[in-house]
Amino acid sequence: MQTYPDCIPCLLQQALKATGLCGINESRVFPVMKRILRCMANFDPDLSPPEMAMYIHRIIRGECGNPDPYSGMKHQAIAAALGHESRIRQMIMASETPFRTAVRFALVGNVLDFAIFDWNPQRLEEQLELALHQPLDETALTRLEKEVESATKIMVLGDNAGESVFDKLLIEQLGGKQVTYAVRGNPTINDVTMADAVASGLNKTAKLLGNGSDAPGTLLERVSREFRCEFDSTDLVIAKGQGNYESLSNSGRRIFFLTQVKCPVIARDLRKRIGDWVIAESKATVNSQCGA
Amino acid sequence: MQTYPDCIPCLLQQALKATGLCGINESRVFPVMKRILRCMANFDPDLSPPEMAMYIHRIIRGECGNPDPYSGMKHQAIAAALGHESRIRQMIMASETPFRTAVRFALVGNVLDFAIFDWNPQRLEEQLELALHQPLDETALTRLEKEVESATKIMVLGDNAGESVFDKLLIEQLGGKQVTYAVRGNPTINDVTMADAVASGLNKTAKLLGNGSDAPGTLLERVSREFRCEFDSTDLVIAKGQGNYESLSNSGRRIFFLTQVKCPVIARDLRKRIGDWVIAESKATVNSQCGA
Repeated sequence: MQTYPDCIPCLLQQALKATGLCGINESRVFPVMKRILRCMANFDPDLSPPEMAMYIHRIIRGECGNPDPYSGMKHQAIAAALGHESRIRQMIMASETPFRTAVRFALVGNVLDFAIFDWNPQRLEEQLELALHQPLDETALTRLEKEVESATKIMVLGDNAGESVFDKLLIEQLGGKQVTYAVRGNPTINDVTMADAVASGLNKTAKLLGNGSDAPGTLLERVSREFRCEFDSTDLVIAKGQGNYESLSNSGRRIFFLTQVKCPVIARDLRKRIGDWVIAESKATVNSQCGA
Repeated sequence: MQTYPDCIPCLLQQALKATGLCGINESRVFPVMKRILRCMANFDPDLSPPEMAMYIHRIIRGECGNPDPYSGMKHQAIAAALGHESRIRQMIMASETPFRTAVRFALVGNVLDFAIFDWNPQRLEEQLELALHQPLDETALTRLEKEVESATKIMVLGDNAGESVFDKLLIEQLGGKQVTYAVRGNPTINDVTMADAVASGLNKTAKLLGNGSDAPGTLLERVSREFRCEFDSTDLVIAKGQGNYESLSNSGRRIFFLTQVKCPVIARDLRKRIGDWVIAESKATVNSQCGA
């Protein structure tokens, strides 16, 4: 998905919030924002919002001198999610359709997005209450279920730390397939990294693979060759969250996106409303580039 | 008042909205926003938000090729205000304290700010309902009343077109003083210009004076010499709206500001809440520069 003019003030609002969260000295905030303005002024809007966000958060991390300034918030979110893990696993296993229930909880987890929301355990509780009742495209869910059944190799693209715990519960319901859980190659915002995936207990459930990039999404021009080959050769890709949708919706590969709709641009693109939970399918239009 | 980092995304959001209101072709919006980003990246934050807004709206007017793109909305707002004029004048004259009631309606008029709000006659109606009941600093109002009584020459700095009709009703209650109503020297957003003041009927009530500038505020470094001399030599200045507050709060001249609080930066600066109606006084710290 390209970057829309509406993304400009929104990304700047997120950047401003990030300067506060990352503890950048008040006297430095304006100069940092000016660097970000300059960077955005030179941006190619044909690229996706996560690419612009990648540059913005590089500037912020550089300024605060901390390679992972959201680390503390990520630990809080992971701890909170782990606190719910056992109860949710029981609910999933006790349900008549464990896979479908696990998808619903994986969508709950997508609320843990600190680019857009503040860290608020209450919000997670509210979303957990919604899990079994929130409207969802049951036909798309059935298609996803069938794809899972017929796949041998499945790749799940993680989004946020904490959400990763809910992704683990989904992976447990993928019927013993060969699953790779892909994480960001380096920290960006509160996106899940290798360390966060391990802290979430995912190393016991899936093969973990960093994508080699610090974009809050999956930019195929910037991922490692190893990631790209696995992405191209896997039978099924399940991509979590808006950042992955924004960066992969036009990738040419068939992908199932699981995301909450959190901004008007995505809402318009998906013809949904803010707050909706979405299972969106992109169609395959190109063949694998692995080995090219 | 300086420009704060919080102003950056807000001004960009306003700019984005303005590209739509001014009918800039969708394909041109991103390039225009990039020009604005570049301009903001070079901005000196010690200057006030109306100075930055001035540059932004010059770019937008230049792009849409219309020197007064808000003209239609301004006419609508003036017509709506004129539709209420006679009823409000009767309410003011029938009240026990006509001057104080007129101040309240002048504060109602400040809702007609299309940099922040959309044009919505319903919003004006709602504000008119509030006029007599909205909390207001009665002590500050008493001080203003006394200043009016002791002044010979009074200058009212207008803010928005439409609001100007309410300003006229206030000027009618200034006890026959020698009143100058200052307007923007050239169109910017929906700020009141000479033509708008005439359309509001102000030419029959006050001497009209353009300030020589196209800033949505009063930038003393940019106003005409004629304006500056009158500003410096008048006994009392009553300044309407946020833009005049932002540009004059540190001017060194004693001023009474009448404004609604519409943004968190101003709310913090004034220690008020968004939606509050404010009579704020700045203290005199320097002498007149007229004739310097």
